[in-house]
Amino acid sequence: MQPGDVLAIAQKVVSKDEGRVVVMADVVPSARALALADLTGKDPALCELILRESSRIVRRRGSLVIAETHHGFICANAGIDASNTALGTAILLPVDSDRSARRIQSVVSAAVGGRVGVIVTDTHGRAFRRGLVNVALGVAGFDAINDCRGETDREGRVLVATELAFADELAAASGVLMGKAAGTPVVVISGVPTRPAPGTMTTLLREPGHDLFR
Amino acid sequence: MQPGDVLAIAQKVVSKDEGRVVVMADVVPSARALALADLTGKDPALCELILRESSRIVRRRGSLVIAETHHGFICANAGIDASNTALGTAILLPVDSDRSARRIQSVVSAAVGGRVGVIVTDTHGRAFRRGLVNVALGVAGFDAINDCRGETDREGRVLVATELAFADELAAASGVLMGKAAGTPVVVISGVPTRPAPGTMTTLLREPGHDLFR
Repeated sequence: MQPGDVLAIAQKVVSKDEGRVVVMADVVPSARALALADLTGKDPALCELILRESSRIVRRRGSLVIAETHHGFICANAGIDASNTALGTAILLPVDSDRSARRIQSVVSAAVGGRVGVIVTDTHGRAFRRGLVNVALGVAGFDAINDCRGETDREGRVLVATELAFADELAAASGVLMGKAAGTPVVVISGVPTRPAPGTMTTLLREPGHDLFR
Repeated sequence: MQPGDVLAIAQKVVSKDEGRVVVMADVVPSARALALADLTGKDPALCELILRESSRIVRRRGSLVIAETHHGFICANAGIDASNTALGTAILLPVDSDRSARRIQSVVSAAVGGRVGVIVTDTHGRAFRRGLVNVALGVAGFDAINDCRGETDREGRVLVATELAFADELAAASGVLMGKAAGTPVVVISGVPTRPAPGTMTTLLREPGHDLFR
């Protein structure tokens, strides 16, 4: 890595490093979790974890549970995953995914002798479109949004509503190489100019009052 | 370019090439368009084009109109754009974005002497998350979805619900380089293995009955 590079790292390895691995047999499901298990056919312990990790259930149909996590992510099962972890365990999202990104950013920047960017990524489903895409759960070292408002187009018109989700596009780019089943958990992105900033994923979350779909 | 590469090309240049440029002064707004203009404060001619290009209005708030296009894309203003086009004109999406991709794929594959992939891209907003991301509107020459179901993880468990929106991740990767205001309309992606196939964007569209958010 070189200063200016961006490191994308899969949430799963970050969560493992931060001890966010739960032994399912140790989880005691609440009455609410048992009810959710009944509705969905899911493991009651997983339902308990989903409820603990989320502020609310956004949608539910069949076995599908879309929850809003305490961070504000809207994703299946509150981001809890039971693949690529020891059997009988589940992996929760980092408690503070920006803090995770900052921690890694600090270590890696020191190692390479200059500022790098870090994105903690996870694959999310989407409204309207099929298939998972890798998105940014935590961002450090650069602006997650490229605000192009005020720039002019080729005809000299000022762009009005153009904010690019730059960190999400970089996360998606890393997703091409990360794959899924037994993939590559770390991808280095070079040659893409970033805007130096403390960085945060919060700018990527649409304020609930501005969201037409939740 | 080499055989196996993927060419990402911005919808706007494809639409221009296909004559999908409309002189706004020539557009006669219908009564419905006048009503939509009244509700949104938008140009009545733009409202007329939005209605022509869409099968329905999915959400509307203030000046924001999210429409479902005849292709099945759910996006602002039915994908109609008035930046980087001559003043007084607007650019419509290609009539058949897969056909556009196939046409380009055929020409470029012949030129490089082997199969290439082509993605026609556009920037879309998203539910829940802020910022635009570049997505695939048309796909030719490779599978838009990487279906990982049936693959096993590091512990030997079979993955169940893992379809990666590969063409959308490639489109987002190209979006990092395309920028927005006066950007780069064509990006070549090398070194990423694709699954040879006729290719189509339709596999990226969630069937309305399976969509929890429309």
